[in-house]
Amino acid sequence: MKLPDFAPIPASLPNTVPFVGPETLQRQIGRPFVARLGANENGFGPSPKALSAMRDAIAQVWQYGDSTSHDLLQALSAHCAVPVESLIVGEGIDGLLGLLVRLMLAPGEAVVTSEGAYPTFNFHVAGFGGVLHRVPYREDAEDPEALLAKAHQTGAKLIYLANPDNPMGSWHSGRTIEAMLDRMPDGTLLILDEAYVEFAPEGAVPQIAADDPRVIRMRTFSKAYGLAGARIGYAIGHPTLISGFERIRNHFGVNRIAQHGALAALQDQDWLRFTCSEVATARERITQIGKENGLLPLSSATNFVTLDTGRDGRFARALVRVLEENGVFIRMPGTPPLDRCIRVSCAPEAELAVFERALPAALARLR
Amino acid sequence: MKLPDFAPIPASLPNTVPFVGPETLQRQIGRPFVARLGANENGFGPSPKALSAMRDAIAQVWQYGDSTSHDLLQALSAHCAVPVESLIVGEGIDGLLGLLVRLMLAPGEAVVTSEGAYPTFNFHVAGFGGVLHRVPYREDAEDPEALLAKAHQTGAKLIYLANPDNPMGSWHSGRTIEAMLDRMPDGTLLILDEAYVEFAPEGAVPQIAADDPRVIRMRTFSKAYGLAGARIGYAIGHPTLISGFERIRNHFGVNRIAQHGALAALQDQDWLRFTCSEVATARERITQIGKENGLLPLSSATNFVTLDTGRDGRFARALVRVLEENGVFIRMPGTPPLDRCIRVSCAPEAELAVFERALPAALARLR
Repeated sequence: MKLPDFAPIPASLPNTVPFVGPETLQRQIGRPFVARLGANENGFGPSPKALSAMRDAIAQVWQYGDSTSHDLLQALSAHCAVPVESLIVGEGIDGLLGLLVRLMLAPGEAVVTSEGAYPTFNFHVAGFGGVLHRVPYREDAEDPEALLAKAHQTGAKLIYLANPDNPMGSWHSGRTIEAMLDRMPDGTLLILDEAYVEFAPEGAVPQIAADDPRVIRMRTFSKAYGLAGARIGYAIGHPTLISGFERIRNHFGVNRIAQHGALAALQDQDWLRFTCSEVATARERITQIGKENGLLPLSSATNFVTLDTGRDGRFARALVRVLEENGVFIRMPGTPPLDRCIRVSCAPEAELAVFERALPAALARLR
Repeated sequence: MKLPDFAPIPASLPNTVPFVGPETLQRQIGRPFVARLGANENGFGPSPKALSAMRDAIAQVWQYGDSTSHDLLQALSAHCAVPVESLIVGEGIDGLLGLLVRLMLAPGEAVVTSEGAYPTFNFHVAGFGGVLHRVPYREDAEDPEALLAKAHQTGAKLIYLANPDNPMGSWHSGRTIEAMLDRMPDGTLLILDEAYVEFAPEGAVPQIAADDPRVIRMRTFSKAYGLAGARIGYAIGHPTLISGFERIRNHFGVNRIAQHGALAALQDQDWLRFTCSEVATARERITQIGKENGLLPLSSATNFVTLDTGRDGRFARALVRVLEENGVFIRMPGTPPLDRCIRVSCAPEAELAVFERALPAALARLR
């Protein structure tokens, strides 16, 4: 009796995962984190109205969710001023990225991203047999010129760009993105990951027609809306591209409680503004803590602050490990030269105070 | 500006979806269903302990779920008497089937299923470029002999068999399944869909070693555990096969509230027994209603009863439509000769009473 073979592409993939989760780390260390500042989650939480809507939705959890996410789509259409035909709801940006790569990419086709950008996107590209080409960051920001040049050079089918960026927190103006579209190779699709867009200054949001065939925008309820555990996000794109998702998506895959939570969260823009203001305060606080400890805070348009240790990846990795052992969960970029930095998520003051106490002790231990 | 091309496999797929959801049907009809008896959901609902666990989990929904579903895996391991290495948790059986097909099937490879069996499985096979071969049901049950013969003939990579079966409610003994394994072609994997296994008589559950490389079993919290809207299920298989999921799955894709709900539901086996007893009563009631209206109820090991109209697919389709228009949502098999039947899900008495009133009126209108 032998195990049937995996298909060729999965057979060629490593058994690695893009991220080890904080729960796994906690079990390795043997105790829970006191400050959970590593996954860019939003500890200020979702709107109380979203919490209440989810509590109410639980009674109906025996029913599958609406396979079309109709009510949420309608609300998103009004909120984003985009026709419903240009919108698709899915299981978070991670889920939507996987579907998009599958929809667009034939095995062997080229994809361009930045060295150190979102690993889960790379995971999907590898997972469907794509060939990744990486260009370096430039001054700790993704580099549209380099991405474009590499796309032209490789005949890339997809370009990935997050604006604002993760893990550096940097951002480009909307105009830069718009100008980038005009210089894309014909037949190339820009994946504009806007997971952090609600935290960004207004000028960082490009004006793009909903039926522009050159770009798809990914949005999520995981960050500013505080619903990471609900697994729900959406994409905006050309109606033909959006309808392509129907060919392959898991139609009843979105959690019913998440649909209700996302709808209520979207309808409470006051809470979103409150969250963004709390995040701005926390960003200032992390910036200050970094400075007081000799780390250089980078400007951020997100709900995290990236702190330059002024050292190398080895040092930063050791710092992350010592902080973990002392109950503080943070992350860091995975590749040089970004990996001289650590990345700290915005959170309520109690957790930042834990970080404030733990950081100098950890640094002292390493120096 | 042209839209970038879809990849070849998605480009070849139709824009159809396996199921139109009841919410979509309600919007088409213009009013809500009074009896929701079409999706084999469990209107008796999940354990009150699961509801309570989900309510508690909502406060932490700003956190991503545990990417390993550790606590649930441990509980499943104890419950199923299977090592955790043989278990994977995913976004319902639909999600797990998609991953499994992707993991195992190269484009062009053969897959065997039954004509009229689960359409979502076929959707995944087509979605990854597989070639479907269908064998007929035999006496309204899936036919292991025919499945095996077709697998040998086509060199099939995968065989799909649901036991108990959907949409007919029939079942095979565990021994029949065990004997089937011994006659599989080498290198073929049996997908044993056990979505309805908790409703089945004990003899319908095969004894299979957790590390048997010839089969993967799919289970869900959507049916007997009443958590369809939560999107959570699991699979049992050889550790190497199970570890393959790590190469391609969406690691943070399971909803956090669902993880807590599923764990609490699993731990309340008293409620499961209560549910199964309520389902048995409802099954008897649907059987009775069918008989009183001249329909032939088929024996069922599931939470639905398939009623033979004694007519053809055209008649059954018209019956489904008339019932829908009168507020009763049911479904029916999609292909002849099964499509002479309608399929009615077990539900609390109030909804069955609606069905009892609506059925004779609908039949009268059609005759």
